[in-house]
Amino acid sequence: MPIDITHDASLRSWVESANTDGADFPVQNLPFGVFLRDGTPRIGVAIGDRILDLVVARDRGYFEGLAPNIAAALGERTLNALFALGRSALCAMRGRLSTSLRADTAEGARAQRDTALLLPREGATMRLPTTIGDYTDFYASIDHATNVGSMFRPDNPLLPNYKHLPIGYHGRASSIVVSGTDVRRPHGQTSAAPAGPPAWGPSARMDYELEVGAVIGAGNSLGSPIPLADAESHVAGLVLVNDWSARDLQTWEYQPLGPFLAKNFATSISPWVVTLDALEPFRAPSRERGAEDPALLPYLVHEQDRARGAFDITLEVWLRTATMRAQGVEAVRLSRGEFARMYWTMAQMVTHHASNGCDLRPGDLLASGTVSGPTRDARGCLLELSWRGTEPVLLPNGEQRSFLADGDEVIVRGWCETAGRRRIGFGECRGAVLPAQG
Amino acid sequence: MPIDITHDASLRSWVESANTDGADFPVQNLPFGVFLRDGTPRIGVAIGDRILDLVVARDRGYFEGLAPNIAAALGERTLNALFALGRSALCAMRGRLSTSLRADTAEGARAQRDTALLLPREGATMRLPTTIGDYTDFYASIDHATNVGSMFRPDNPLLPNYKHLPIGYHGRASSIVVSGTDVRRPHGQTSAAPAGPPAWGPSARMDYELEVGAVIGAGNSLGSPIPLADAESHVAGLVLVNDWSARDLQTWEYQPLGPFLAKNFATSISPWVVTLDALEPFRAPSRERGAEDPALLPYLVHEQDRARGAFDITLEVWLRTATMRAQGVEAVRLSRGEFARMYWTMAQMVTHHASNGCDLRPGDLLASGTVSGPTRDARGCLLELSWRGTEPVLLPNGEQRSFLADGDEVIVRGWCETAGRRRIGFGECRGAVLPAQG
Repeated sequence: MPIDITHDASLRSWVESANTDGADFPVQNLPFGVFLRDGTPRIGVAIGDRILDLVVARDRGYFEGLAPNIAAALGERTLNALFALGRSALCAMRGRLSTSLRADTAEGARAQRDTALLLPREGATMRLPTTIGDYTDFYASIDHATNVGSMFRPDNPLLPNYKHLPIGYHGRASSIVVSGTDVRRPHGQTSAAPAGPPAWGPSARMDYELEVGAVIGAGNSLGSPIPLADAESHVAGLVLVNDWSARDLQTWEYQPLGPFLAKNFATSISPWVVTLDALEPFRAPSRERGAEDPALLPYLVHEQDRARGAFDITLEVWLRTATMRAQGVEAVRLSRGEFARMYWTMAQMVTHHASNGCDLRPGDLLASGTVSGPTRDARGCLLELSWRGTEPVLLPNGEQRSFLADGDEVIVRGWCETAGRRRIGFGECRGAVLPAQG
Repeated sequence: MPIDITHDASLRSWVESANTDGADFPVQNLPFGVFLRDGTPRIGVAIGDRILDLVVARDRGYFEGLAPNIAAALGERTLNALFALGRSALCAMRGRLSTSLRADTAEGARAQRDTALLLPREGATMRLPTTIGDYTDFYASIDHATNVGSMFRPDNPLLPNYKHLPIGYHGRASSIVVSGTDVRRPHGQTSAAPAGPPAWGPSARMDYELEVGAVIGAGNSLGSPIPLADAESHVAGLVLVNDWSARDLQTWEYQPLGPFLAKNFATSISPWVVTLDALEPFRAPSRERGAEDPALLPYLVHEQDRARGAFDITLEVWLRTATMRAQGVEAVRLSRGEFARMYWTMAQMVTHHASNGCDLRPGDLLASGTVSGPTRDARGCLLELSWRGTEPVLLPNGEQRSFLADGDEVIVRGWCETAGRRRIGFGECRGAVLPAQG
């Protein structure tokens, strides 16, 4: 597939902050989000340290000639209607936005004089990008599944179904919050002994999980599966996800129906949806399956998916404790992972999810599960990093963490970087732990 | 608590069909639903074989003097806004409706002359009563959990957590359909051997599950638990639920994160939400805990809940096969269960769900899990009735069922009947199995 002009690494924007080395939002990215303007949610695009207001842009004629349903969708308070129009609508938008934000076009010169178009990103209040009808969480990192499995079932870390299907479960949509929202430590039942009896109290094993989420674009109707070759046409883009977890609640409650209160007190996502079009230059082959891996059933196999179904996204988790804030110390990195190492691609997760006819709706969130790698510094949650609390993480200021303490701020970052391409980033997904209610 | 006038068994309606013995919707019931009028969803109330159009009733002044937010909520296309106003708004509505539909009031005499108020219920197209933001499915029948557990873990049927908390998991909201919607048999991965390899094909073990669902009224905010004493103030009413299941998909996929594709291809609910106010005369003590049952943690204990937290609802599942339809034979009853036998009350499920701060939103659905009893004829799904296929159910026309066949129509019914009280019913939750897609 030809790389279209919007990815050209030499392109510069008239928004100077977008041209800085290491900027998350250069003109090659153009992610969509929802921000508050005069108290009302509006759709925008991030460019450098600014937000471009898409309602203003529309009303001033920047999208002249695009389909009327696109113009209508830009007036909504969430991205659901725009994403429902499918990848081609986002692609058309991206093309126009690129032209208007480039430093070397007549449209760009006009836009540069249009001071109402942009707002500062710093200090802007972001909202969830979509109304999330349903949230599904997968378990697609074989390194994570093997690590966690070996803690709970040392003789049998990976269950027999793992390599045949992307294991997933339904999460809670209501408690998904946007980055910047602090998260209260939950109360719950925990039991030191597997047979109980349980005690009641604040979770003592609160954790984060580093994940990537796909935001659904065009939906499918109930009863109509999505072939793997079409799966990506149903994905608008990706966000960063922190799937907060209470490990002690989870251990006690999760049999036989899976995690429930251990997860549904909060899930954080980053506010900017990075489109699959923007990610196009950072595609990678899906994880190679070895001789020990079983053949997949045909509905989960497609040549395109194998050759380019993964995305080279580097992911990091940073921690800043209350003590570090008091000391004026910056956040410290806890782990770095590679999204391309996942055992399953996002397309496989979409196809498997709809394989029984389940309908995915625009704006739905499909998260990857914890992104972990084979080395210690690539473990995507504290449960793994501290090996269930047996190997506490030592922080540079002398503090230790087996699980999260009150006041800890967790910051998830992600970006794509490849030689000859302009780096693009996801921004941050950030949240601090509030003490349990008294 | 005094029984208010709306429950008086001697009350009759000027809608004569509401006074028939065995009618589901006498003037003592007045459940809320959403129907189509001229292609547009509208809120209504079932009375006998009629629907009362609440928009017409409002516009003609039947609710004069009620709070303006109630009048506004009646103009919505779902019941979410009305239910969000809480139990007192529904109670006020019910009082007015009762007065207007009674045979012995001036308001009733006026309403009887108002021919635009009512439509025939037969032939009306019903919609889902609410937009369901999140759907949670519990596992609250100890008979069901014991039966199913003993099939999969004969030496350890009931897990240690069962008697300490209402086990639940998140279901899929998108694929919830209203009664009358046929359901397509899903494809999926199944494996005869526990270690695989799996095969791909239509489910050969499709099943129903007889359940009751609570529809959330007023919500709670994220981070704010709901004390047990307040739990019922967050429930607008109850519906019948059929949680369709594919047992062969479930066996292979459900470890370690719970059911996923085995459940999310469809869940059916009845269209009429029977309010807790209407159910008031049918309250019962919660299931008695024996000496062998552990003490509950305090957040799950309240005197009111113990004394009257259960509801005496009789539930039945009926089956009509394609052959029976061809033979002109009526549906046959497969089971009859008692909702009051559940190990956990609806209030305990609500409180446990929110105990970690998880927010419930107006319109959300909390289903009970399969309602089974201790006897064979009280088993609420075919998995139990046929004991995992080993004891097929013999139908009167000579057919047998271990699991559902294409063309089978499943009908769930429920009602309350107590000496000295007017019987009230839930109507039906019905759906037929369509063959898997070719």
